[in-house]
Amino acid sequence: MSDFKATKAMFHLPEGVIYLDGNSLGPLPKATAQRVSQTVTQEWGELLITGWNKAGWMEQPMRLGNRIAKLIGAPDGSVVLGDTLSIKVYQAVASAIEMRPDRKVILSDSGNFPSDLYMADGLVRTLGDGYSLKVVAPADVAAHLTDEVAVLMLTEVDYRTGRMHDMAALSRQARDVGAITVWDLAHSAGAIPVDVAGCDVDFAVGCTYKYLNSGPGSPAFIYVAPRHADTARPALSGWLGHEAPFAFDPDYRPGTGVERMRVGTPPVLQMAALEAALDVWDMVDIADVRARSIELSQLFIEIIDERCPDLPLASPPDAARRGSQVSFHFEDGYAVVQALIARGVIGDFRAPDIMRFGFTPLYIDEQDVAQAANHLCDVIEQRLWDHPEFKKRAKVT
Amino acid sequence: MSDFKATKAMFHLPEGVIYLDGNSLGPLPKATAQRVSQTVTQEWGELLITGWNKAGWMEQPMRLGNRIAKLIGAPDGSVVLGDTLSIKVYQAVASAIEMRPDRKVILSDSGNFPSDLYMADGLVRTLGDGYSLKVVAPADVAAHLTDEVAVLMLTEVDYRTGRMHDMAALSRQARDVGAITVWDLAHSAGAIPVDVAGCDVDFAVGCTYKYLNSGPGSPAFIYVAPRHADTARPALSGWLGHEAPFAFDPDYRPGTGVERMRVGTPPVLQMAALEAALDVWDMVDIADVRARSIELSQLFIEIIDERCPDLPLASPPDAARRGSQVSFHFEDGYAVVQALIARGVIGDFRAPDIMRFGFTPLYIDEQDVAQAANHLCDVIEQRLWDHPEFKKRAKVT
Repeated sequence: MSDFKATKAMFHLPEGVIYLDGNSLGPLPKATAQRVSQTVTQEWGELLITGWNKAGWMEQPMRLGNRIAKLIGAPDGSVVLGDTLSIKVYQAVASAIEMRPDRKVILSDSGNFPSDLYMADGLVRTLGDGYSLKVVAPADVAAHLTDEVAVLMLTEVDYRTGRMHDMAALSRQARDVGAITVWDLAHSAGAIPVDVAGCDVDFAVGCTYKYLNSGPGSPAFIYVAPRHADTARPALSGWLGHEAPFAFDPDYRPGTGVERMRVGTPPVLQMAALEAALDVWDMVDIADVRARSIELSQLFIEIIDERCPDLPLASPPDAARRGSQVSFHFEDGYAVVQALIARGVIGDFRAPDIMRFGFTPLYIDEQDVAQAANHLCDVIEQRLWDHPEFKKRAKVT
Repeated sequence: MSDFKATKAMFHLPEGVIYLDGNSLGPLPKATAQRVSQTVTQEWGELLITGWNKAGWMEQPMRLGNRIAKLIGAPDGSVVLGDTLSIKVYQAVASAIEMRPDRKVILSDSGNFPSDLYMADGLVRTLGDGYSLKVVAPADVAAHLTDEVAVLMLTEVDYRTGRMHDMAALSRQARDVGAITVWDLAHSAGAIPVDVAGCDVDFAVGCTYKYLNSGPGSPAFIYVAPRHADTARPALSGWLGHEAPFAFDPDYRPGTGVERMRVGTPPVLQMAALEAALDVWDMVDIADVRARSIELSQLFIEIIDERCPDLPLASPPDAARRGSQVSFHFEDGYAVVQALIARGVIGDFRAPDIMRFGFTPLYIDEQDVAQAANHLCDVIEQRLWDHPEFKKRAKVT
């Protein structure tokens, strides 16, 4: 059994704060400051340009990709880091759609993160020629997954409600109708067991600053199934995806395997933060993380049910159909979340009325959960949120 | 007159190293380690998710864009940071080509950085429908700039030879034939005076880790002329380019101005490094930097001319036609550069036979230049490069 007391000690959590927003930005692992500082002063400062070789910066996107691969059921050499998640979504969908030249539909759902939909929409407009993005309700995806669909693009865990798609079943159905799958694992990687190889997924993408705790704006990752990795065309054909980047050939020739999905120079300081953050995963089993996250989420729901039975759960009540977060509907949810932050409980709000709380066993325990649930009920029962200070919207909500 | 003794003191330069590769990766400004550390421990560590508002992370790409705008002759509010240069090239060209729906040719030259050509090639393939990328010799660009050209995509300073295009003249000619201009300022920003507004440039892009010293993999920037900024369509339509990112609308509506070119979450740690690095520009005038860089380059050329007259200059002999670097042809240039590195002189090599030396007055003085030139001549005259150790190619050359 994974030792979550030990993992909690690996994170810096500000005094008096209960952090239930690791699903948006993971907290700082204690080892990170030192690791980043080493990259700045010892590597960049002392090695200068030779750091690309001597400090291994150039290989880092694949090296760290291999560590993430273990968390999502991907084989060695099939995952690479780089860019932002939106860019990785674009790359995956652009490559996927070319594999079905006789089809023109990208199927997605309204539970997808908006940026995924926006990126696909942008791609469709650039492709022109009758291509389209079809967005249906999450529950209707299976019914619309026909042999007209070129690409099925879904986020496994809904960012607002935590509702989970059945990745295995939908991927199987996609394969049966000849559609290529692109799964966004933003709220999956590091939160729940994922098995991209076992589910026969074609492409997967995800971010590292949520449950992987790599820091604000750290790079995304992309998985390409080995059966496609040497044939998928990179639409964003950057020099580091070239077969021989330093030959400076006038013509683009995609590199071998998933490395062809590299584009430009990797963000070395953010990579250093990611490297430090990944160490915690050597100490825990993702199955234990999942089991514990369910316990914590259930405890939260039970206390709310008991004390605030009128607060409508926005997440699936069945833990097996829910990611590592619990959400509630509340019209003045923004103000409630602000009032909670004032009490040291950090969750977040997603328009129009979702209060969202993430349960990450790496640094959250029962005591935190019980306290947070009681604070939430206090704020609601006593209408503590009903104060102008809490209703003033910040730019980032 | 700018005080270059004072600026030199602002950089950490390893003992015994003469760094002539700031055109590839600028050295570490002394203030950077502290600034990055503050972002890691005080901002991320203490503020967690609230850092997006409280530490101003969300506004940073525009805030720092305004500081870069000053260096390239762009008005306030017309430059934004994000992604890699390759991605920014793609965005600029994709937006530009839509502005000329009756034209299908992107014109560029063989002196452009290969990744720019690769990205344009990828775009052309996604567009399909008769679009093409036409690559001509640098000297032939003007002759091929006809009213068939939708987009003129050039890098102002050739990464190998330092040859400069005449941005004003080519931009004027482009405007006269109705072509949209996309200028890559990778080797211009922070090296030479640039006047994108005065040259009536449509789009410009550049990187920050060369002459702007922001560290390995730090983000790129994009300039959109204010006359296009509210109409250019972002092909990479990410959520942070949306008019209201936190409304989570199902439909994409591009934001106001250049912010629509934002895509995903900005790399906050790299941004912190950039912020610290930009302070040096408050102390110097770019015209002084240029004048001094020419003096240093001329001194380098004179010493080489004197001691190694047979070494063929690959750069334009006329300093006015050359960026902030000097290059020479030498068949075994790779080995020469390695032998120089062993002596503490860091330049770099670009295939097939270019030895490249950057002259950045912010931290390079006459003494450095004279020493470096003499080392180069020693290595060549005495064939010190002709050693197996120096011929072993590293992955990054």
